[in-house]
Amino acid sequence: MSEHSSFAVVAKPGDRVVDLSTPRPLIDEDVMAANIARGQAYCDEHGLAFRPHIKTHKIVALASAQVAAGAKGINCQKITEAEVFAAAGFEDILITFNILGAEKLDRLAALHERISMLKVVADSVATVDGLSVRFALAKPLTVLVECDTGGGRCGVQSPEEAAALARHIAAKQGLVFGGLMTYPKSWSAAAVQAYFAETIALLEKDGISCATVSNGGTPSLYEAHLVLSATEHRAGTYIYNDRSMMRDGHCTQADCAMHILATVVSLPTPDRAVVDAGSKALTADLLGFSDYGKIVEYPDAVITKLSEEHGAVDLSNCVGARPEIGEKIRIIPNHTCVVSNLFDTMVFHRNGVVTRVEEVSARGLVW
Amino acid sequence: MSEHSSFAVVAKPGDRVVDLSTPRPLIDEDVMAANIARGQAYCDEHGLAFRPHIKTHKIVALASAQVAAGAKGINCQKITEAEVFAAAGFEDILITFNILGAEKLDRLAALHERISMLKVVADSVATVDGLSVRFALAKPLTVLVECDTGGGRCGVQSPEEAAALARHIAAKQGLVFGGLMTYPKSWSAAAVQAYFAETIALLEKDGISCATVSNGGTPSLYEAHLVLSATEHRAGTYIYNDRSMMRDGHCTQADCAMHILATVVSLPTPDRAVVDAGSKALTADLLGFSDYGKIVEYPDAVITKLSEEHGAVDLSNCVGARPEIGEKIRIIPNHTCVVSNLFDTMVFHRNGVVTRVEEVSARGLVW
Repeated sequence: MSEHSSFAVVAKPGDRVVDLSTPRPLIDEDVMAANIARGQAYCDEHGLAFRPHIKTHKIVALASAQVAAGAKGINCQKITEAEVFAAAGFEDILITFNILGAEKLDRLAALHERISMLKVVADSVATVDGLSVRFALAKPLTVLVECDTGGGRCGVQSPEEAAALARHIAAKQGLVFGGLMTYPKSWSAAAVQAYFAETIALLEKDGISCATVSNGGTPSLYEAHLVLSATEHRAGTYIYNDRSMMRDGHCTQADCAMHILATVVSLPTPDRAVVDAGSKALTADLLGFSDYGKIVEYPDAVITKLSEEHGAVDLSNCVGARPEIGEKIRIIPNHTCVVSNLFDTMVFHRNGVVTRVEEVSARGLVW
Repeated sequence: MSEHSSFAVVAKPGDRVVDLSTPRPLIDEDVMAANIARGQAYCDEHGLAFRPHIKTHKIVALASAQVAAGAKGINCQKITEAEVFAAAGFEDILITFNILGAEKLDRLAALHERISMLKVVADSVATVDGLSVRFALAKPLTVLVECDTGGGRCGVQSPEEAAALARHIAAKQGLVFGGLMTYPKSWSAAAVQAYFAETIALLEKDGISCATVSNGGTPSLYEAHLVLSATEHRAGTYIYNDRSMMRDGHCTQADCAMHILATVVSLPTPDRAVVDAGSKALTADLLGFSDYGKIVEYPDAVITKLSEEHGAVDLSNCVGARPEIGEKIRIIPNHTCVVSNLFDTMVFHRNGVVTRVEEVSARGLVW
């Protein structure tokens, strides 16, 4: 299962999760299945194609479950992720990243020969021209224009720029203009819709159509129908959910499928506990919080500080029971996607009994 | 080299690092060798045993280099790390963590049978009693008392408590009292020395001696001689160094052996660049900074925001040259130890030419 298998602490079906070595992320099968079904049902109801982002789980079996539920294809963030999923039989993959440099372009070309529906994005002439040179004499590659609709990350800055880059792609040898893509981190359905509609209108004047208009994000998933021009929606976190999604009202605690099982290893003072989950199990991702996760059993406890293998917990606000040394607790992480990237395997359970252990096949791969 | 080897982007000796796929952490051989030599020379000069913490690199060959330079043994933070290094032939291992629970105690017992000089720490009667029950009928296990000398993490809170727990260990079947250990995160040589000296004096009255008095931390490494009672010092980060060590005056930029090679993938606005190193390459560890690493080539650029595979860079303070799309840059991470934990392999180079690729054998293992 892993190059470390002789050392890894392996769980097996039938084990009770409370007996597992900690820290250990766990996925509740039923909660996850409900999350998959809910996301797909929403998109089906609104006539949107759904393209789950596999960066959250990086597990082949979960992407298969998402496609079996009705997903159109998958979204990857890097070539190495796409390679893992292409090898597992996925044909429709969108890589939402600018791909640059000889080594990556060669890998992209090999991937393109292997699967039937590979698509990438670009937000600059430099990226488009690199793709064109590489694919000029090969099977044409479909390229979407990445639009910055307020996320402040990648993406062209206006509908005019988007239309100009789309025309550039459409005119380039080896490339097919595939449409528009955005990741609107600060969600405003009206802003995204206005950006898309204006770009589409500009391109229509030139007779250029947008086959795919791809919106994204779990925070916007259940409002995705408000972007009328979108043909598909991408989401990753929805499959597990996490504390940041709870805070922002996108799910309830009962919808959080991932918990990090941890052990209380020290109670140095009456108000301080230390657990064996630190930044190498939870990551230091705050996502706007000032603490590092929610302890299910002690909701008033605050994980104030992480070092690599320790989490310091302030118990001073705890009313009633407090944890004992040796006790196992469950932590809902601030951000699930980065936790997945830390572990070679993921343990699944139903009602606290292990159902399966899956390899996190696409974790830790260099781009 | 890895379960992902068919997908991993592998470097090989002789490759130029600028041609490698990004994001990719790189270690400068000569800088690292100088760091190893300097840490050891300091301890030798002051008559302190040196025990490098392998959590920073998790690579067998590097621990071998540290021991070859004169280190007494190694420090691990969890059993699975110790198992990897024990299998590689290391006999003197201190695990600086409370070990609790049947599964971990069984693994500890197996490890203890395998190597000759295993030591652990404890900061509570609960932990000590668990160890005693497990080792009562086996080869006795050496246990040090962990002292909280101001770090605010684990550890007993006073010399009186330390002495009481030491007496408890000394009286327990299956255990040998081995001395004292601390990780003084907020470094005060005087406070650590006072705590140690007072505890030692209390124990001397009972005829109990401290064979090992173990102090730790890279920030305190080059002042370790100020803790007169210490017999050994532990340090991890010193082998690579990082931006937090630079800021705090513990090294210069020239002493930083780790760089993350990244590619500029987008320039959406005149003042914003986006690189392909996000929280899955740099981690979100701030360590007191408000940004996510230092770009060597553009020291006035600020990595303001990370998402998983993107780093957003503010160029507005850059005087003179600015990066171009496709350009490769090098980032000194805020914290090296958590970066090591993200990658299955580490690439080493000398003057930009790859010298070797080492497996990060102890990464990602559940406790």
